[in-house]
Amino acid sequence: MVAANLAVAQAKPRARDLGVPFDGTPGVYNAITDVKGVEVGHTTLISGSGKLKVGEGPVRTGVTAVLPRGKDSLDPVFGAWFTLNGNGEMTGTTWLEDSGFLEGPVMITNTHSVGVVRDAVIAWRIKKAPPDSEGYSWSLPVVAETADDDLNDMNGFHVKPEHAFHALDTAHGGPVEEGNVGGGTGMICNEFKGGIGTSSRVLDATAGGYTVGVLVQCNYGSREQLRIAGINVGREIPEHTVWQKDVGSIIVVLATNAPLIPTQLKRIAKKISLGLGRDGSYSGDGSGDIFIAFSTANPGAVGTQGLHQLTMLPNDSLDPIFLATVQATEEAVVNAMVAAETMTGINNHTVIALPHDRLREALKKYNRLSK
Amino acid sequence: MVAANLAVAQAKPRARDLGVPFDGTPGVYNAITDVKGVEVGHTTLISGSGKLKVGEGPVRTGVTAVLPRGKDSLDPVFGAWFTLNGNGEMTGTTWLEDSGFLEGPVMITNTHSVGVVRDAVIAWRIKKAPPDSEGYSWSLPVVAETADDDLNDMNGFHVKPEHAFHALDTAHGGPVEEGNVGGGTGMICNEFKGGIGTSSRVLDATAGGYTVGVLVQCNYGSREQLRIAGINVGREIPEHTVWQKDVGSIIVVLATNAPLIPTQLKRIAKKISLGLGRDGSYSGDGSGDIFIAFSTANPGAVGTQGLHQLTMLPNDSLDPIFLATVQATEEAVVNAMVAAETMTGINNHTVIALPHDRLREALKKYNRLSK
Amino acid sequence: MVAANLAVAQAKPRARDLGVPFDGTPGVYNAITDVKGVEVGHTTLISGSGKLKVGEGPVRTGVTAVLPRGKDSLDPVFGAWFTLNGNGEMTGTTWLEDSGFLEGPVMITNTHSVGVVRDAVIAWRIKKAPPDSEGYSWSLPVVAETADDDLNDMNGFHVKPEHAFHALDTAHGGPVEEGNVGGGTGMICNEFKGGIGTSSRVLDATAGGYTVGVLVQCNYGSREQLRIAGINVGREIPEHTVWQKDVGSIIVVLATNAPLIPTQLKRIAKKISLGLGRDGSYSGDGSGDIFIAFSTANPGAVGTQGLHQLTMLPNDSLDPIFLATVQATEEAVVNAMVAAETMTGINNHTVIALPHDRLREALKKYNRLSK
Amino acid sequence: MVAANLAVAQAKPRARDLGVPFDGTPGVYNAITDVKGVEVGHTTLISGSGKLKVGEGPVRTGVTAVLPRGKDSLDPVFGAWFTLNGNGEMTGTTWLEDSGFLEGPVMITNTHSVGVVRDAVIAWRIKKAPPDSEGYSWSLPVVAETADDDLNDMNGFHVKPEHAFHALDTAHGGPVEEGNVGGGTGMICNEFKGGIGTSSRVLDATAGGYTVGVLVQCNYGSREQLRIAGINVGREIPEHTVWQKDVGSIIVVLATNAPLIPTQLKRIAKKISLGLGRDGSYSGDGSGDIFIAFSTANPGAVGTQGLHQLTMLPNDSLDPIFLATVQATEEAVVNAMVAAETMTGINNHTVIALPHDRLREALKKYNRLSK
Repeated sequence: MVAANLAVAQAKPRARDLGVPFDGTPGVYNAITDVKGVEVGHTTLISGSGKLKVGEGPVRTGVTAVLPRGKDSLDPVFGAWFTLNGNGEMTGTTWLEDSGFLEGPVMITNTHSVGVVRDAVIAWRIKKAPPDSEGYSWSLPVVAETADDDLNDMNGFHVKPEHAFHALDTAHGGPVEEGNVGGGTGMICNEFKGGIGTSSRVLDATAGGYTVGVLVQCNYGSREQLRIAGINVGREIPEHTVWQKDVGSIIVVLATNAPLIPTQLKRIAKKISLGLGRDGSYSGDGSGDIFIAFSTANPGAVGTQGLHQLTMLPNDSLDPIFLATVQATEEAVVNAMVAAETMTGINNHTVIALPHDRLREALKKYNRLSK
Repeated sequence: MVAANLAVAQAKPRARDLGVPFDGTPGVYNAITDVKGVEVGHTTLISGSGKLKVGEGPVRTGVTAVLPRGKDSLDPVFGAWFTLNGNGEMTGTTWLEDSGFLEGPVMITNTHSVGVVRDAVIAWRIKKAPPDSEGYSWSLPVVAETADDDLNDMNGFHVKPEHAFHALDTAHGGPVEEGNVGGGTGMICNEFKGGIGTSSRVLDATAGGYTVGVLVQCNYGSREQLRIAGINVGREIPEHTVWQKDVGSIIVVLATNAPLIPTQLKRIAKKISLGLGRDGSYSGDGSGDIFIAFSTANPGAVGTQGLHQLTMLPNDSLDPIFLATVQATEEAVVNAMVAAETMTGINNHTVIALPHDRLREALKKYNRLSK
Repeated sequence: MVAANLAVAQAKPRARDLGVPFDGTPGVYNAITDVKGVEVGHTTLISGSGKLKVGEGPVRTGVTAVLPRGKDSLDPVFGAWFTLNGNGEMTGTTWLEDSGFLEGPVMITNTHSVGVVRDAVIAWRIKKAPPDSEGYSWSLPVVAETADDDLNDMNGFHVKPEHAFHALDTAHGGPVEEGNVGGGTGMICNEFKGGIGTSSRVLDATAGGYTVGVLVQCNYGSREQLRIAGINVGREIPEHTVWQKDVGSIIVVLATNAPLIPTQLKRIAKKISLGLGRDGSYSGDGSGDIFIAFSTANPGAVGTQGLHQLTMLPNDSLDPIFLATVQATEEAVVNAMVAAETMTGINNHTVIALPHDRLREALKKYNRLSK
Repeated sequence: MVAANLAVAQAKPRARDLGVPFDGTPGVYNAITDVKGVEVGHTTLISGSGKLKVGEGPVRTGVTAVLPRGKDSLDPVFGAWFTLNGNGEMTGTTWLEDSGFLEGPVMITNTHSVGVVRDAVIAWRIKKAPPDSEGYSWSLPVVAETADDDLNDMNGFHVKPEHAFHALDTAHGGPVEEGNVGGGTGMICNEFKGGIGTSSRVLDATAGGYTVGVLVQCNYGSREQLRIAGINVGREIPEHTVWQKDVGSIIVVLATNAPLIPTQLKRIAKKISLGLGRDGSYSGDGSGDIFIAFSTANPGAVGTQGLHQLTMLPNDSLDPIFLATVQATEEAVVNAMVAAETMTGINNHTVIALPHDRLREALKKYNRLSK
């Protein structure tokens, strides 16, 4: 099945396939799922067309679930978060910050559906297994959002608990669907159609051979500032812009199998900013640029009895991971735009996809097309 | 109606009425509503008895709404927050932190109903008024929680959107109902029945005459550590304890009409810890001790056009406000316990109220009974 | 020599000896040095009398050094810090926060001598040993301060590098000198003579048997708010006050041998506030209330090659450590006042010591004298 | 004199003069001093050559002073700070964070001279004017650093108090000396000779016409990652690298005359990261990437009596300032490298300047040379 998905995924070109040059070595899927155990599921809701009637549609939204150890593990992971610009929501971060643990999945949806998804994660956890020795460990779920109200009837509250359940239940490893899927369905990125994007890096064996994977729900940015591979691509494709400013938001989820403690993951979460910097972001006032990073190493670290034995990478070995973080973030954003397709939503509002040929032309103009 | 409520409230003794000595001068209601404009509403849900059947009850829970400028104003206030121990949730804090504004009400409920209340606040806002020039300004609601699963069928998800609406729609100034009401219905404080408590302080005219009001949803603490007016009252009333440890949580909402900017409100939020310290808290690992502070001064400060003229109290005039913060917090916690009544919840679990006579005896033993 | 010091220390009564009741079990010395390996050294500078002549004196100041693993180890410890009120300085905290490591000693001196002590620590480190593989590891020293300008010619810059060297070179385990010594020489606490104080707690074997030790440089507080063992002792001894407000500062250094990671030490640093709350602090605007916590467990964790194996106590085992933190902080402050002696400084300004008999009388009045 | 300096400065090409394309409109001097009132002074210490003899040299270091309102004003400014990577020092930030005020100059020097410069700022303040009503307001000076030990005898402690005095006393408006001057004398940036760089942006009148100025002490980065105008210039000039990794640090000082409160300045400080992202930084473990931002608007805001009237730009007008921040940071780093000249320091270690012709060639190769 993974192979089949892979075939599908490969049928659709990704940024590298178009000749966008990126540094570093990606994993097999060039996806967050290259970090062993990580699973991703999407629920995509698309229905109706034409004029907005609140509560009826049109609907262009969804839910994405990222499960650090897959849907069958209840074992928390070390985690940390960072906010570059806070005009957004990521629930569950108060306990993440204090405990150093991410105790369940990371869910991403639209701004007005954070609540329903949050409580649904608790309900799903209750159904899944009896409470742990300390009570229900997923009672403070992590749910993030970006706003899709340019295309979606966001005030119609179309996301229901079953949509969260479905994203969780269908999560899988292997290739990750990108573009107009899951929480990213109705999102807009640098005034092109945006959505979900992912990328990964595998470190050299001398640096430990660890994997760093990034998944973004990309809904931020202005066309005018967009840089791809350092080139101001947005200025080469000025037509059909949406806002003429940096509104919207981006949620970034980073996974690694490197054995890091929460203090170190916090540092990594901060470095995600630099990847967005390479892509030209200036993180406008209206943006909710919120990042979360976790490590799948050290299973069982949350355990409630006795002492735990942990493995930690020294701080002065973090540089290759910092660099991989920047690179994978830079690429995941571009992958989101490359995968997304032109969409028409509420009130017949259309947002165009990044035209692949024009992207190649722009890179070629600046001698940046690879090969 | 306020007068009638006042009569009711006065019929029930508060901590001061029992002879507990506190410093400082409270406002008319000795409540958060002494800060002009602040309104508080509760929805209290009590039904069923006996053995827990998830989804059926017994139900001992609710919702409390604190509206900084009352339910008819959409004008944000300057705000800030602080976490003493993070095993809890307060949504909306990412934007609060970054923007310096609290853009809607502060809602408090049980842990597993944060989501439904969050989305309901958005729905309520949408019904209330057309979007502002920047879109819906309450799209990132502030909702906090403590866990009532010792008494309430928390996994039954009994809080519905209409319960949030009701708390918002019935919010009022004047006396504030305390104890087993609203979000505090099923809460436990220092192993006595807890819930909602409030208190206020009015500064001397030389200090500006400002008012500081505090409201707590009190669900934290161990009997053994409880101090009232400095006396280890918990040790004088050792029977019918619940956990023998500091589990549970406390949400503290602080309002003031002093003209403070967000940086200053952050400092005040931190000082709330000192009030809990006076009451004997050590803020256990299981506790979600999360505080929010706002100022009703500077109306219109969020406005989106032109420059704003603000008034600011100098930093070196903050001391009386810091002291009032500590004092009002110290008292609000005791008021919650004094007002709460013995409750029997799921599985016939009973939590006793703080016995008023025993409290007086304990204070008398240590020569601390006032008058 | 330790035995001799112990005899000296015992000759001077501490708070417990006076009948002040405290909870919990202290270690052998009831000092931060009960945490194995921790050493403390003081340089005390007292000279001159009478009218202030800037640069000439009178001098009432000094330097205190706390060495996490003793003066002969260069091995960093895990650490974290927290600011309750930021009107003060603790250098080195930027790297402490990001790295999770305290790489050298914690030094405490007066406000205007932080710089000279900081650079002196680097010079001492350079003399002590060749650079480590990453360069000099103590190049970002941690130096904190409180202001002694009510008694000391602080603008005369009387602290010199050799005074820092001496505090480091004479650091020792065993009993810790308290009161008018080291950095605490000219300090004022709750408008009594203050200075250095210390205390410790040993956890039950069932909680791991760990030790928590606290050392304070105590220069904060208002007489009117001072609580000892819950009693408003300050109001019982109202004469000879200094400022009638909460000015000054307090530096708190906490050591433990419990195996904690930096995230956990950050939580502990926050809980120090609660101990100050018990003592009546409201942490005034002029106060620099800055706390640092470190763990001597996990030696070698900073190492620069390969992976490190760490031991970590689970979060849900932290409660006894949180409680010990609050208790040891509460007691260390009182120990500082009990040990300090009346001092006359610049311009013949005299600050009285807390009168032991009056303290006992106050506690007796409220039935709080132990035994 | 300003004119003369301008002539000198113009004699030396800056990045724009070489054809490096940047967005946005700089001020008259394209310097932090375009923000009215800001003054910059340097003390440059260069002496000796050949083999390192600790304490004797060679010396390649200095001090830079940035005075928000010039050297003759003692009026604090609103400020905030942010750390992207914390392997560095900026003293005074604890009070900056809590108070929201920067109360004196920002000083920058080498890592091992932070202490001497810090205490010297206090001494300078004492000489300058009598204490304010609250005592000496510059007692918690802001001093930052980067390490110059690849070229300078940093363990020789060659910076003396008079060097700090000189930087303060000679501070001036108008053109700012860049490259191997002041604190930047011995610094290395992206493995080229680095040091001091500056740039500014003037907003459109429709955005308020405010000025944003940035000054960097640039000592960070790896050649391999360096991007200029989006082009991987470092890879085009691979010879004479220094470390092959991202070591070193960067201090960024941002000034604006826009009327911003501290919460807003904190947001701006965070956005500085994005400018470094554009230049290719991944902010390695060894880097102290610490940023400070202040606003010269609202003079007198710190005053200690009565209420203050402030002016505040609304949050949703911040976007042009965020973008200017990113642009000015991006350019200031390049200006530092363009201005710096090849230097030989301790042990005859030579670090080459960025060759201007090679830079132009690289940009031309990618069709990025302006005009």
